[in-house]
Amino acid sequence: MLDIKTLQDTFEAYRRQYAFTQDPQGLYEPVEYIMASSGKRLRPVLVLMGSALFQGDQSRSLPVAMAVEIFHNFSLVHDDIMDKAPLRRGKPAVHTKYGLNTGILSGDVMLIYAYKFLAQGAESPEAVAHLLDVFNEVAIEVCEGQQFDVDFESRDDVTISEYINMIELKTAALIGGSLQMGGIAADADAIALTELRSFGRNIGIAFQLQDDILDTFGDPDKFGKRVGGDIIQNKKTFLILKALELANGEAHQTLRRLMSTTPQDEAHKIKTVTELLRNLDIPSWAASQKEKYQEAAFTALDALQAPEPGKEQLRRLADQLLVRQS
Amino acid sequence: MLDIKTLQDTFEAYRRQYAFTQDPQGLYEPVEYIMASSGKRLRPVLVLMGSALFQGDQSRSLPVAMAVEIFHNFSLVHDDIMDKAPLRRGKPAVHTKYGLNTGILSGDVMLIYAYKFLAQGAESPEAVAHLLDVFNEVAIEVCEGQQFDVDFESRDDVTISEYINMIELKTAALIGGSLQMGGIAADADAIALTELRSFGRNIGIAFQLQDDILDTFGDPDKFGKRVGGDIIQNKKTFLILKALELANGEAHQTLRRLMSTTPQDEAHKIKTVTELLRNLDIPSWAASQKEKYQEAAFTALDALQAPEPGKEQLRRLADQLLVRQS
Repeated sequence: MLDIKTLQDTFEAYRRQYAFTQDPQGLYEPVEYIMASSGKRLRPVLVLMGSALFQGDQSRSLPVAMAVEIFHNFSLVHDDIMDKAPLRRGKPAVHTKYGLNTGILSGDVMLIYAYKFLAQGAESPEAVAHLLDVFNEVAIEVCEGQQFDVDFESRDDVTISEYINMIELKTAALIGGSLQMGGIAADADAIALTELRSFGRNIGIAFQLQDDILDTFGDPDKFGKRVGGDIIQNKKTFLILKALELANGEAHQTLRRLMSTTPQDEAHKIKTVTELLRNLDIPSWAASQKEKYQEAAFTALDALQAPEPGKEQLRRLADQLLVRQS
Repeated sequence: MLDIKTLQDTFEAYRRQYAFTQDPQGLYEPVEYIMASSGKRLRPVLVLMGSALFQGDQSRSLPVAMAVEIFHNFSLVHDDIMDKAPLRRGKPAVHTKYGLNTGILSGDVMLIYAYKFLAQGAESPEAVAHLLDVFNEVAIEVCEGQQFDVDFESRDDVTISEYINMIELKTAALIGGSLQMGGIAADADAIALTELRSFGRNIGIAFQLQDDILDTFGDPDKFGKRVGGDIIQNKKTFLILKALELANGEAHQTLRRLMSTTPQDEAHKIKTVTELLRNLDIPSWAASQKEKYQEAAFTALDALQAPEPGKEQLRRLADQLLVRQS
């Protein structure tokens, strides 16, 4: 089994081989700019692992890995426009550097190139058609998840199960889809593909729940972003939704008021909300929720009929993702 | 052979059957809004004709027709944002009615749905893979054409052949691709597909050249848009490019100056530029250019090995497109 670093390097070499250097430069330079600004390459690594599990050929899994990474970066380019986010990975976002119109059009062509690489992801036309079906399903889910996220901002009756469904669509579907499409590129059977998808989706949900937990309760020295960012932005994560469900009387009023206003004293707001959540024992409830999805993921992985070293590698990757600094 | 009106109606019935009424409504209502605002349905009709030529089954060609029409409308949604166009077909554009973010995200999901319908466009996985290849090629060309169009605005050394290439990418590729993909859905052979593609691309170029001609020399009572619009917007169409090539001395200076400024008196600018073009005999040169592509189209159609009634129908459609009010 190749380790994660080797898979990342293999993907990087492939990506550089297919760098977007063609004309018109005004269209493709921004594509290369975002594609080259690395990130963790989590999704392409998952495609390669999903394929390696079934002894798939990298000449097939690498184009699928590229398709998935281009799609992920396309979604970042358009999301940054919609979120008015000036920076991405510490550098100017595409729309900041190249303008709104270029951000839209270069994003569009990325989505098409994702399909172009996908079409090279299998030997048999049957497998290409199968890749296309899974990719379409996942891509639609990502857009729907983004829309639900936007809709939830202006709703005050979002349930926890609606919230979990939203993060499954927006984040976890592509994690699961990456593994699944890696498996398809390696001609894995239908049962194995279902287990891979389930493992990936549950890991993806657990990962996003962990991100929510760290954003509020994380160690400021270890968490990459500002701790309390979600609270400042009035983001109703599953922590807040549960707290609103549990809190009574004055605590409920305070929480609802704080999470719908933008007071001057941000530090005080963060402190008050965080203490309120701690008083309701939200941290341990949240950890149990995360563990629930994590366990569902490992159950699916255990059931997967594939050689043990590959499964062990997936377990290690999941552990890396899920026991980050807390 | 079914007439054009019948094909339009058949497509409309199919489109309504697959109306975008699902959740989240914030994402799909704008999709249904633009898809239902009709237009001529030229591209889906071409898909259906391309398939009918080879006795293709409409259960296959209709999803391809839908894919092509969704793609076309996706490009309108995003183009209207980029062009800051408030209206589309006399109604508020999607971004005007629903906001910028919705315009971007609903456009994105349309592009994905185009692929989803495309995947249902053939019986055999081989044909699905073939449809995917042609669709990807055309979709990339449309984006590149849009970028070249933007780039040309700030260049003063665009050649006529660069201009023709731009309109081929931006407009004609999808016209040719529609016929070609209709043929693929009906399992037409490779030689026939090449002729269909060539017919469609050349008709598409002739159609766009005619649009440029009508925008400047058309009858104001018959032309749908304002005559002189391209001149007001300083759009360097092939008419202006040729005139700049032919004009000497003062006429050249005047033309270059007028086509790079925005004078108060628009009517006077239109009159001066139009007279200058007439003095250089641009109308007859432009007509000969249009005819060149029109003839290339009919040559390709004559060579096409297919039953005569279907070919005659394509000739009639081309005649309708190309002898519009002038």
